[in-house]
Amino acid sequence: MTLDDLPTPCLVLDLGLLRRNLAAMQAAVDRHPGLVLRPHLKTAKSREVARLASPDFGPVTVSTLAEARYFAEAGWRDQIYAVGIVPAKLDAVAALNEAGAAVKVITDDLDMARAIALHPGPIEALIEVDVGEGRGGIAPEDPLLEAIGAALGPRLAGVLSHSGHSYNGRSPEAMAEVAEAERLGITAAAARLRAAGLPVRIVSLGSSPTALHARRMDGVTDVRAGVYMFGDLFQAQLATHAVEDIALTVLASVIGRSEARNTLLLDAGALALSKDRSTQAAPRDYGFGLVLDRLGRPSLGEAIVARAYQEHGEVRNDAPLPALPLGTRLRVAPNHCCLTAAAHDRYYVVDGNAQVIAVWDRVNGW
Amino acid sequence: MTLDDLPTPCLVLDLGLLRRNLAAMQAAVDRHPGLVLRPHLKTAKSREVARLASPDFGPVTVSTLAEARYFAEAGWRDQIYAVGIVPAKLDAVAALNEAGAAVKVITDDLDMARAIALHPGPIEALIEVDVGEGRGGIAPEDPLLEAIGAALGPRLAGVLSHSGHSYNGRSPEAMAEVAEAERLGITAAAARLRAAGLPVRIVSLGSSPTALHARRMDGVTDVRAGVYMFGDLFQAQLATHAVEDIALTVLASVIGRSEARNTLLLDAGALALSKDRSTQAAPRDYGFGLVLDRLGRPSLGEAIVARAYQEHGEVRNDAPLPALPLGTRLRVAPNHCCLTAAAHDRYYVVDGNAQVIAVWDRVNGW
Repeated sequence: MTLDDLPTPCLVLDLGLLRRNLAAMQAAVDRHPGLVLRPHLKTAKSREVARLASPDFGPVTVSTLAEARYFAEAGWRDQIYAVGIVPAKLDAVAALNEAGAAVKVITDDLDMARAIALHPGPIEALIEVDVGEGRGGIAPEDPLLEAIGAALGPRLAGVLSHSGHSYNGRSPEAMAEVAEAERLGITAAAARLRAAGLPVRIVSLGSSPTALHARRMDGVTDVRAGVYMFGDLFQAQLATHAVEDIALTVLASVIGRSEARNTLLLDAGALALSKDRSTQAAPRDYGFGLVLDRLGRPSLGEAIVARAYQEHGEVRNDAPLPALPLGTRLRVAPNHCCLTAAAHDRYYVVDGNAQVIAVWDRVNGW
Repeated sequence: MTLDDLPTPCLVLDLGLLRRNLAAMQAAVDRHPGLVLRPHLKTAKSREVARLASPDFGPVTVSTLAEARYFAEAGWRDQIYAVGIVPAKLDAVAALNEAGAAVKVITDDLDMARAIALHPGPIEALIEVDVGEGRGGIAPEDPLLEAIGAALGPRLAGVLSHSGHSYNGRSPEAMAEVAEAERLGITAAAARLRAAGLPVRIVSLGSSPTALHARRMDGVTDVRAGVYMFGDLFQAQLATHAVEDIALTVLASVIGRSEARNTLLLDAGALALSKDRSTQAAPRDYGFGLVLDRLGRPSLGEAIVARAYQEHGEVRNDAPLPALPLGTRLRVAPNHCCLTAAAHDRYYVVDGNAQVIAVWDRVNGW
């Protein structure tokens, strides 16, 4: 089977680029002795990708109960479910843990901590700490920290932070500064809990930029990152990823062309690409994606998917577009690989050429 | 089963509102004697919704081969697959037609018309006509029209246009004008083909706004519309739909809250809601959706999902948000129902209260 036999639109994953991205992240983490990479599987949602990113069934991160179940069944026991837990989801977590997993939840809420402590099943929790992103979590200096820790008691597994604001950085130096602020915040929270006599086993922080650019990681036990596996056009503008290392693309067919308008239409629109516009505020706006040839090479110059209808992607370029016959296959590099991948139920895996060497599934939904 | 038993995030579809929306559209179409409504099933992608929208297995529209197959197997024979066809997809269409369906394809390309004419299987095509949207299709006055019609020969089924630019209208009058321009364009194309001795059985146009607001439909055989079934916050600003008639919402749980920031966090983020920002340029910007209570009532005032992370939706409001306990269930009305629905594999059906009366599947992907 080759790229020409696939139904379009579909996801194409380049194995060589994936391996290169995984190795680069592992090397970045290995700069810090004792630090463990806890891959976030919310991007890939695939056992086969997890087997490469976490070959020894080490610690991982998930974002849905569906992922927790799918990866637990495949052998990844040590998980952090890194989205704030609610009472109605505790039974499902406990059931996974009773079957042998060790899925840890996160919370920043005192009532929730009490509910976790009282749950009859085996559930541990990390306290979510806000290190400046301002989304969830409590500040390291908030006295609520010890109160939640005490409420969790022996069910306290540690502390967790997420530096989503590292994405605001535009240089390795700026991201290293965010990473260091995150490290200072999360280790301060851990120290305060320990000073109160509470056990803190896990001190977890992360995002792909902080994992790649942090200068120090002392006091941190594990770092979470996910998007580094595939990369995308947004990450490429954070100096964390090169455009030519983007491992995930959408294969599409040319379904229309207009010489007068200098446009091509692809059968990859808003559903196949997502409506993520994260490059809008970046130095270079790629519309809904950068158009590459069938082998992933930039042979169409600066052509981008400028408009995305439900099933139509309209390609535009400043230079004249080639008169490609209908049915010509092209690839589109995504703005945000997590969202683009989520519209598809499988990966068609290639390795630098047109041969499809494997088909890997994904666990979508909740 | 009630709304409190459902896993969140999930799709909730209100049957009473769906029925009301279907009846309103049917009444609008019935103003034009002889005009047939050809529901576009790309929004609902559900047999159960199709049974209500097209109870006699009448003509329908689809946007993917997966929909064509799913609806053909369920009994809807007369379909238009309204996305430009490519050679590699002809065999799949022919196989459906050999099994009893009558899936018609569309094209605006002479080479493609020849390939359709030469295909050994039973395939008819409509010529896509551009009535001003400037996406696909050929202009009604372009001589290519007759050339494509002649190339299709006995396989020519008719002409089709889409007035996506009707969405630029902001009043019923503006949309009625776009609808009339579309009618003049598509009937002119039909007349030119007939004058050339070519048979034109189907003259199909559409979009929900044109179907609702057109003053005249003479010369048109069928009108296509899809989003009217559910409605959304974007449609509500086109005067084609009331906010209180939006039948589709996302049920979510409160997973975080910050009094200091006056925010709530929901477990419905970019994946559950989509990153569609179509209300951004509308009179009222709803962020990523309008926040309603568990029964779909606007009891949180003007609260919207202001930021959407992969699995987190951050709710903001100018007025203080209530201190809701974690686990509280809310509903989010979407900007664009087609894209929001596509992230989910099923509908939980209610009818004005918290009781779940049915679960309906969807056919996602391609």
